[in-house]
Amino acid sequence: MTKNDEYVIDRVDVPVSWTNYLGVEDLGAVVNHTAGGYLFYKSPEHHRITRFRPNGVPMDRPGHYLYLRDEETGESWSVSWQPCGGPREHYRCRHGLSYSVYECTRNGLKAAQTLFIPRGENVELWELRLENASGRPRALSVWSYAEFSYHQISIDNQNFQMSLYCAGSRYEDGIIDYELFYERAHQFMAASFTPGGFDCLRDSFLGPYRTESNPLAVERGKCSGSFEKGGNHCAVLQKKLALAPGETARLTWMLGEGGLEEGRRVRERYRDPAAADRALEDLAQYWDEKLSKLQASTPDPDMNTMLNVWNLYQSEVNVLFSRFASFIEVGGRTGLGYRDTAQDSMTIPHSNPDKCRERILQLLQGLTSSGYGLHLFDPAWFGPPAEKPAFKSPTVIPTPDKASIVHGLDDACADDALWLVATVAEYVRETGELDFFHRTVGYADGGMGTVYEHLKKILDFSAEQVGAHGICKGLRADWNDCLNLGGGESAMVSFLHVWALGALHRRGPGPGPGGGRGTLRGHAPERRRPL
Amino acid sequence: MTKNDEYVIDRVDVPVSWTNYLGVEDLGAVVNHTAGGYLFYKSPEHHRITRFRPNGVPMDRPGHYLYLRDEETGESWSVSWQPCGGPREHYRCRHGLSYSVYECTRNGLKAAQTLFIPRGENVELWELRLENASGRPRALSVWSYAEFSYHQISIDNQNFQMSLYCAGSRYEDGIIDYELFYERAHQFMAASFTPGGFDCLRDSFLGPYRTESNPLAVERGKCSGSFEKGGNHCAVLQKKLALAPGETARLTWMLGEGGLEEGRRVRERYRDPAAADRALEDLAQYWDEKLSKLQASTPDPDMNTMLNVWNLYQSEVNVLFSRFASFIEVGGRTGLGYRDTAQDSMTIPHSNPDKCRERILQLLQGLTSSGYGLHLFDPAWFGPPAEKPAFKSPTVIPTPDKASIVHGLDDACADDALWLVATVAEYVRETGELDFFHRTVGYADGGMGTVYEHLKKILDFSAEQVGAHGICKGLRADWNDCLNLGGGESAMVSFLHVWALGALHRRGPGPGPGGGRGTLRGHAPERRRPL
Repeated sequence: MTKNDEYVIDRVDVPVSWTNYLGVEDLGAVVNHTAGGYLFYKSPEHHRITRFRPNGVPMDRPGHYLYLRDEETGESWSVSWQPCGGPREHYRCRHGLSYSVYECTRNGLKAAQTLFIPRGENVELWELRLENASGRPRALSVWSYAEFSYHQISIDNQNFQMSLYCAGSRYEDGIIDYELFYERAHQFMAASFTPGGFDCLRDSFLGPYRTESNPLAVERGKCSGSFEKGGNHCAVLQKKLALAPGETARLTWMLGEGGLEEGRRVRERYRDPAAADRALEDLAQYWDEKLSKLQASTPDPDMNTMLNVWNLYQSEVNVLFSRFASFIEVGGRTGLGYRDTAQDSMTIPHSNPDKCRERILQLLQGLTSSGYGLHLFDPAWFGPPAEKPAFKSPTVIPTPDKASIVHGLDDACADDALWLVATVAEYVRETGELDFFHRTVGYADGGMGTVYEHLKKILDFSAEQVGAHGICKGLRADWNDCLNLGGGESAMVSFLHVWALGALHRRGPGPGPGGGRGTLRGHAPERRRPL
Repeated sequence: MTKNDEYVIDRVDVPVSWTNYLGVEDLGAVVNHTAGGYLFYKSPEHHRITRFRPNGVPMDRPGHYLYLRDEETGESWSVSWQPCGGPREHYRCRHGLSYSVYECTRNGLKAAQTLFIPRGENVELWELRLENASGRPRALSVWSYAEFSYHQISIDNQNFQMSLYCAGSRYEDGIIDYELFYERAHQFMAASFTPGGFDCLRDSFLGPYRTESNPLAVERGKCSGSFEKGGNHCAVLQKKLALAPGETARLTWMLGEGGLEEGRRVRERYRDPAAADRALEDLAQYWDEKLSKLQASTPDPDMNTMLNVWNLYQSEVNVLFSRFASFIEVGGRTGLGYRDTAQDSMTIPHSNPDKCRERILQLLQGLTSSGYGLHLFDPAWFGPPAEKPAFKSPTVIPTPDKASIVHGLDDACADDALWLVATVAEYVRETGELDFFHRTVGYADGGMGTVYEHLKKILDFSAEQVGAHGICKGLRADWNDCLNLGGGESAMVSFLHVWALGALHRRGPGPGPGGGRGTLRGHAPERRRPL
């Protein structure tokens, strides 16, 4: 397979963030080219772990940072270019498949910070490799820094009587324990070393009227050992070390979901750097297996890279977390966008058929019996009643009932459900599960129907919702949500309608990449069956 | 009346913000001791005008800032201590009644920035007074800076595909015009002078990877004349001026609701500093009149200051904007908190009986027929149906219907409605409107009843909702929302119950401040009538 599986940024002061996704299970992170970003458990709206300030200056802070300090000169910098900025002899960000690396050389000291989330664990590892390439002995201090978030992101952004009074921190046995009293939920930061200092309070570490660019604790070389019930909390564990010329060192910080006990367990597991190396290798195998399902070879190497690595990577991650966890939608929503999810799912029937089918069924449940989809919805609305609410709100929030969840035609986007038709067709072509069409699924507004009947309603809806020229109406929006046509017709939707009809009724694989000059290899072609 | 009607902060690096409220009608602002804060029109949730980054470092940025630059030395600073920080010969913040002043002396240049919102206008005036006390001629540049917000605050915080694509700016005739395409809404910044430069784009003014502490345009002494469809926008109008020794100058910036035409009108009106002076004097008269309604004299001058100025000021502002517009609740909610509004309204029947009655009626409508209040609610839910939605959302947001708005006993706070009993009693005692008890009002969950019947239901509810010891149950919370008792009894609520019973059934003014050593003066005592 292609080896172009890292996105490398050498010029770091780009005008907007380049982000990567970490985690392929319950714990997820979005991080940019300067280690800015946030961590969440299952839901970026209801269980945010690290804080992120949307639309800040400088952009996209804070993040998961490591600070270095030369103990002889007092000079300090961050391994990632932000938050300290400034010149480096070398700086490079490498976004890989579920990991990101920040490489920095300054004053003859080589540092590389690798962030990733091992499979089967709810912890983000911060792997630091240091090398003294300066030719003289060096005395150093290193600090981790991340700011903890209140779990409910709307409260974290807007309601400080809750967020500042219901959160607390303490330090025990080398581990930072962050607690949200209200939920009896904990997060931890542990380390592979015995910390030489710690801070649990953001304002103690940064100092008054300072920012992440110039923390007081880093400037003076020592933490204050702060912790408190209430306030703003952070994860700072300090390590002092000396490096002889040419000497290397490895340090690991572990930022995870759970309390002290979980912190101790995780620390035991990843104390040895070899364990982290194995976890990173395991992630590589996970992606290798997915990507190997379908590899295309075209005359254009850039096209190959997009087809064989990045498109699938992007889609797999989107299907997992939905596009609501990003730097564009900063995790303020729970659930699925109809259009987005249908589009993303369309691309993964060969690499993740189970997840593809799950999302298709959720979208079918989010379809009204009139044939339009709910533009934004939470699949939990249509699942079995939960024994307890998935997320406990510390304040009174009206719970919308189903009657108000099912929006009317006024809020329907003309294209949303049409994408699903092609998605289902792709899924059945890939898996051969012709019976899938006969499966019975509910409608969002009540009643049941087979999958085939659902799709027929979608196609009939578009056939009926046409304007004066026989072209599909734009309805609330026709794909470009921001346009909000508010009337008129959309040629784009009519084209999409025809395409969806063809996708469903085409009897063979039809014209596809195999018909061009390129070739496909992998399992996919063999498993394709005509409808 | 007392002259202690300014809260003066000399030591500026306080650990948390001290805020003031500007505006007594539709336009409101919350600003702190360093000019950080935000401006909104009617609703801080749905019509935010200037952006605010909650929980940032340094805290409570951005704001409504003025930068100064010595054109000879290139040195620059802000009139308010933040965002530039640094030492001053003199710095003082004065929070007055609906105005705030930031005084700064640096390098022999005296500057004072006054922020206020004239009555009858939807514009915030930024009045700058300069005096060259350095004994030598000075060449200066001055810049305004505020960052525009997307109107919908949840989108501004979380959904950048909307906020960055649906906002635009331009500059014409010396006025900055900020437009939200989606709503066809505009804001403007105009000035009393012909600008020597402008910037409408935040990132052009601040420069890449900089903050409000060190804008690139200020550093180099000139704006870039930026504007754009899309992006992040700001209000920067530059003025270059020379001051002879001892010379003074006055400059006014005007930040308001409306487009270019409104900007031109406002500029004409406030171009002459005397007009601003009159508007400020008018505000002083507005507050004088309110405060003069009731003035207490106790042996404790600090008590007098609280009773005669700050308690009423705080309450009047809270009744106007609700506590949801603050730095603790950063405007993420629309409507009223039941307890807060009842408490605040209790204190203003003498100074603002119309607003007091309006809030009481809204709270009565937010009462369920079971006798508990809706903890958080929007009075618009129970008013006449709006011809068009008050605020247009650019994305699909489920509209809760009444059935889901009326929360159950699980979300009822034991104390909420009890406060209202005393509030109504205070209102009737103050105004003598005994008929008010017979007025018919709806319940949140349907049905009608007189005001007296509403109050009776509140008292009966508490009499019935008692625990094993005959003490009132705590229910969801008993006043301290953050505790969320989740069972148990609350002596506090039983005390409150007894107090509410007494407040309603007491036949005369009863024991009050007049019974102590102090005296009351003003109109209030004359207008009191026994029930």
